[in-house]
Amino acid sequence: MADVVGKNRKILVAVDEGEESMYALSWCLKNVVSPNSKDTLILLYAKPPRAVYSALDGTGYLFSADILATMDKYSNDVAICVMDKAKKMCKELADEVKVEVRVESGDPRDVICQVAEKIDADVLVMGSHGYGLIKRAFLGSVSNHCAQQVKCPVLIVKKPKCSSSGTN
Amino acid sequence: MADVVGKNRKILVAVDEGEESMYALSWCLKNVVSPNSKDTLILLYAKPPRAVYSALDGTGYLFSADILATMDKYSNDVAICVMDKAKKMCKELADEVKVEVRVESGDPRDVICQVAEKIDADVLVMGSHGYGLIKRAFLGSVSNHCAQQVKCPVLIVKKPKCSSSGTN
Repeated sequence: MADVVGKNRKILVAVDEGEESMYALSWCLKNVVSPNSKDTLILLYAKPPRAVYSALDGTGYLFSADILATMDKYSNDVAICVMDKAKKMCKELADEVKVEVRVESGDPRDVICQVAEKIDADVLVMGSHGYGLIKRAFLGSVSNHCAQQVKCPVLIVKKPKCSSSGTN
Repeated sequence: MADVVGKNRKILVAVDEGEESMYALSWCLKNVVSPNSKDTLILLYAKPPRAVYSALDGTGYLFSADILATMDKYSNDVAICVMDKAKKMCKELADEVKVEVRVESGDPRDVICQVAEKIDADVLVMGSHGYGLIKRAFLGSVSNHCAQQVKCPVLIVKKPKCSSSGTN
């Protein structure tokens, strides 16, 4: 019999502003997190670094300091919004589980792999696409990269096309 | 709180003759399968089709019927051996879980994706490499392919390099 009660796992969930990562989180809460266990859920959000904004500046025009400050603020607001939504979902679906949040700046591929190693995660959970509309355009599939690089088991969750469990 | 008792999931585990897939199975039994649930574990083994043997015949020499028959027998013996090992592990780690076995012939990438769709699996569990020494050489990463194609969540498990939980 599986020793659920004795579990003391670090479950790392990569979240972003997309619906798919929220679906991945809800799937994890329903299917991986064990009630009455000592699991800790670590919610990780990777903020795009400034270099990404510069890459958007394809015409050679340099963004002004004002625009960069606006983008930084926007980026922070998004991070807070995403984390609030994620924490609310944890409370609704698995009230007893311990939740920690981490917001890091950088390429989500690097950030996710680095944090997984650093905290010695027992499992990494993530959506299959995304990690931000802006970032997606530059980086391709984050989940593919992480599945190859991260040492721990990686759970890749896709949002069903016609999901009836509206979580947005 | 997660509704473990009401679960009635179909957990598809792709197994092969490699240690990594057995590690993936053991991880799944310890971390995904819920005790006292109605989960069904479906163990899937993809036997190489004859076309794979022919592909080995790179010199243009055609294998005789004898050799093909020997290879078929070998392939069946391997399938039985793998399944026996997998079933034993299920019994040891999660005695109460319902286990079904499926052996199918074909490219493991196709077989795994097709079975996942057909049985409407709730989650697919697999090792990150392998699916047979012979097949690996021709097919590249099966897990990458399946993670992209399969609609349900995919859990990719790597065997730790210095594992202390010898399961071989």
